[in-house]
Amino acid sequence: MTVYLIGAGPGDPGLITVRGQALLRVADVILYDRLISDELLLLAKSDALLINVGKNPHGRSVPQEQINDLLIEYGHQKPCVVRLKGGDPFVFGRGGEEMMACHQAGIPVEVVPGVSSAIGVPAYAGVPITHREVSRSFTVVTGHERDGQSTLNYAALAKLDTLVFLMGVKNLPDITSSLILHGRSPETPVVCIESGTYDHQRTVSGTLATITAMAADLKPPSIIVVGEVAGLGLTWKKSSPVAGDLILLARNDHDFLVHALTAYGAHVLRTGFEGSDSRLWNRSQVDKVILTSMDEGFAFANFVERYTIDVSSTDILCIGAGTADLLWAFGLTPALVVENNARLLALLEAQPMYKNFC
Amino acid sequence: MTVYLIGAGPGDPGLITVRGQALLRVADVILYDRLISDELLLLAKSDALLINVGKNPHGRSVPQEQINDLLIEYGHQKPCVVRLKGGDPFVFGRGGEEMMACHQAGIPVEVVPGVSSAIGVPAYAGVPITHREVSRSFTVVTGHERDGQSTLNYAALAKLDTLVFLMGVKNLPDITSSLILHGRSPETPVVCIESGTYDHQRTVSGTLATITAMAADLKPPSIIVVGEVAGLGLTWKKSSPVAGDLILLARNDHDFLVHALTAYGAHVLRTGFEGSDSRLWNRSQVDKVILTSMDEGFAFANFVERYTIDVSSTDILCIGAGTADLLWAFGLTPALVVENNARLLALLEAQPMYKNFC
Repeated sequence: MTVYLIGAGPGDPGLITVRGQALLRVADVILYDRLISDELLLLAKSDALLINVGKNPHGRSVPQEQINDLLIEYGHQKPCVVRLKGGDPFVFGRGGEEMMACHQAGIPVEVVPGVSSAIGVPAYAGVPITHREVSRSFTVVTGHERDGQSTLNYAALAKLDTLVFLMGVKNLPDITSSLILHGRSPETPVVCIESGTYDHQRTVSGTLATITAMAADLKPPSIIVVGEVAGLGLTWKKSSPVAGDLILLARNDHDFLVHALTAYGAHVLRTGFEGSDSRLWNRSQVDKVILTSMDEGFAFANFVERYTIDVSSTDILCIGAGTADLLWAFGLTPALVVENNARLLALLEAQPMYKNFC
Repeated sequence: MTVYLIGAGPGDPGLITVRGQALLRVADVILYDRLISDELLLLAKSDALLINVGKNPHGRSVPQEQINDLLIEYGHQKPCVVRLKGGDPFVFGRGGEEMMACHQAGIPVEVVPGVSSAIGVPAYAGVPITHREVSRSFTVVTGHERDGQSTLNYAALAKLDTLVFLMGVKNLPDITSSLILHGRSPETPVVCIESGTYDHQRTVSGTLATITAMAADLKPPSIIVVGEVAGLGLTWKKSSPVAGDLILLARNDHDFLVHALTAYGAHVLRTGFEGSDSRLWNRSQVDKVILTSMDEGFAFANFVERYTIDVSSTDILCIGAGTADLLWAFGLTPALVVENNARLLALLEAQPMYKNFC
């Protein structure tokens, strides 16, 4: 009945919008691009249909016309069809074409914008794409050129402040030499960011003259930022020991615990420790499980036993000595035992070496 | 201990990121700009300190140096300090300066990017800022010039594809004439969007030659999009009757109801119908209250009576004839009575005229 064009943001699952996340939870069908995080797809209803249109089994992506056809087909059949794209659907995402196709077929479309990689990825590398007295504009272009022929107006681009090239790492030599040729100083700072906003993000800094040699081993997805803002030298990182972790929590646990863990940068999934949840353990690295009562400890221990779940690389955090005793009785070893939620939060927030408290 | 620079997105509260929302819920201090939605501020803990740095009592904004000082002061005192900005913190948001100030004071900073108004606002007006064969780049500039003197390189800007001017509606005559002067066709499509992504969004479409006269009565905040993408003629709107509504739900209600309402575009607040919640009714228009059990109906009816809450413009939706009877006994009239959650969702999703079902 309605097709929702949703931007997933640049990669970190915490950067999807609140409405986008809610739609993933209620969608009947989700057509998603490659590079969409598992943490987002795991939010789907257990009976939702998930279709990867980023790569077919032969490694080629599904042609745009076929994606349009799928949107129309499911749009006629199902109440809530989500088209999930990396970044924002309208920033080199072909969202406009999909909207046109749906409109022509009489299917209503709604758009849920996302954090564009052009802005979010530099931010994670400490690069503000505008900065007072330094950059009063930014221009975003796709560095991916058809047939190796550049159609970009480098004469104009060379005269602007911040430039952001998406998908351009392969063309880095052309980009830098074209900008220098058109008068941009070879000393202009450049930052290349590979896998931006992911835990394995890599950043290489240089100048228009030096970056090609320095960033030769960067792989897609990478983003290039050219301009004085790339030379400000700011950096930051998530400080909580749970940042980036996938954490499971029983479905009826206190909301505040979920909010706090999400605020610290963790990706929290609520679960019932039922049979349908075992797919989750096969697909993703579950970093931590939090068990806040003996009932939950019992449900989890039974779940592990029944579905022979491998918990060898999962930290089990539990609240209450009784819960811990119960886990030990089942042969499970908690990584951390604390007396209450507040104590747990204090440790996870401030204490990178929380294992010392076991 | 940590200062979080958070982008609130362009206005629609559903467009904040999941991590940004979680941080608002756990923050000890929130320093926010003007134009931040009440729906977001209402997420704060009841003992959180909320400071409006967008306007002081004399209508002037707090100077940037003073905001930096406040961030440092609270950053030393409190574990979780949020700096909440419209759009993205690094897109003309002076986030870089705030990060530098905190770093110099030894306070850790984390960044939570937001949906930039430059991308999200055009999207809500149906304008994809890039589009295959039409626009291969977009440039974002601030249309707000100091001392009326333009420092923008219009010669370069006139040669690029999509241009987005933030905060520029006052300078629309200068912007359009400068672009035409530098060779951009007077027939180039232009869209101006006032209060983008809000319920009262207004859009005016024209060309470089005509838009100044047509958009003369637009007020800030407005965004100007110049380029062929502004002439594609796509539009969409949220179709659910709850879109844009502020809906209250008891704290222990089913998560799926919250997710579905959020997915349809509503802004859901969970509440305990306690004394501390009465401030909410004074500040904001509560559009709907959903009561899913007799217990909740009783708690709500008591709350209304005790704090003399005005519910005359609030729809009370309830589940179960018993809940309805109880409300009537208290002199409250439900706008809708249904037998279960599923029926409620079906009506809210598909039925603009749900009042007919009362």
